[in-house]
Amino acid sequence: MSATGIAQLPEPPYYAVIFTSQRTAGDQGYDAMSDAMVRRGSSQPGFLGLESVRGADGVGITVSYWRDLESIRQWKEDAAHQQAQAAGQAKWYAHYEVKIAKVERAYSMV
Amino acid sequence: MSATGIAQLPEPPYYAVIFTSQRTAGDQGYDAMSDAMVRRGSSQPGFLGLESVRGADGVGITVSYWRDLESIRQWKEDAAHQQAQAAGQAKWYAHYEVKIAKVERAYSMV
Repeated sequence: MSATGIAQLPEPPYYAVIFTSQRTAGDQGYDAMSDAMVRRGSSQPGFLGLESVRGADGVGITVSYWRDLESIRQWKEDAAHQQAQAAGQAKWYAHYEVKIAKVERAYSMV
Repeated sequence: MSATGIAQLPEPPYYAVIFTSQRTAGDQGYDAMSDAMVRRGSSQPGFLGLESVRGADGVGITVSYWRDLESIRQWKEDAAHQQAQAAGQAKWYAHYEVKIAKVERAYSMV
């Protein structure tokens, strides 16, 4: 994640993983695992950037950006990430949705 | 936006507009315009759903989902939305990034 919370990205095309979630109550080790997964994910081959926001109501949107589908597949299968995914389903999330999307166009406020 | 804050969507393919922003300080009419744009955008042809979260640091991610690129183009050119975009650049946002992406695959927590 950049210092500003808005990712600096190359020109499209690239891929986005849109992860929308509703947290359960209480931390239950979530913050530490989330920080660890941000660090680990950011060092994966093909990782381009990350934007992540959670509101006071527990709904969060995390968008990670990747060079290609193969990079996304490898990160999904990473052993530590698999453990985090299992714990996420067991205790941290009431619900989540994942979307994999090809970014075709991007522009900024000028 | 659904009652849960997580959009209910059809099977892919469809399109996502990922809007990541940093708000300026103070409301300056933002909340009222934001609510109006959510209502207006949600009634546009081709609109499928919306997910929107802003954190305490003023960084926000809004993802709107659309049937096709033509629906996105028409909403971008909507007259009231154009006024909101101009005000957004002039006073509400310190910075924003827009990405247009084709959702190829989606899955939920089971």
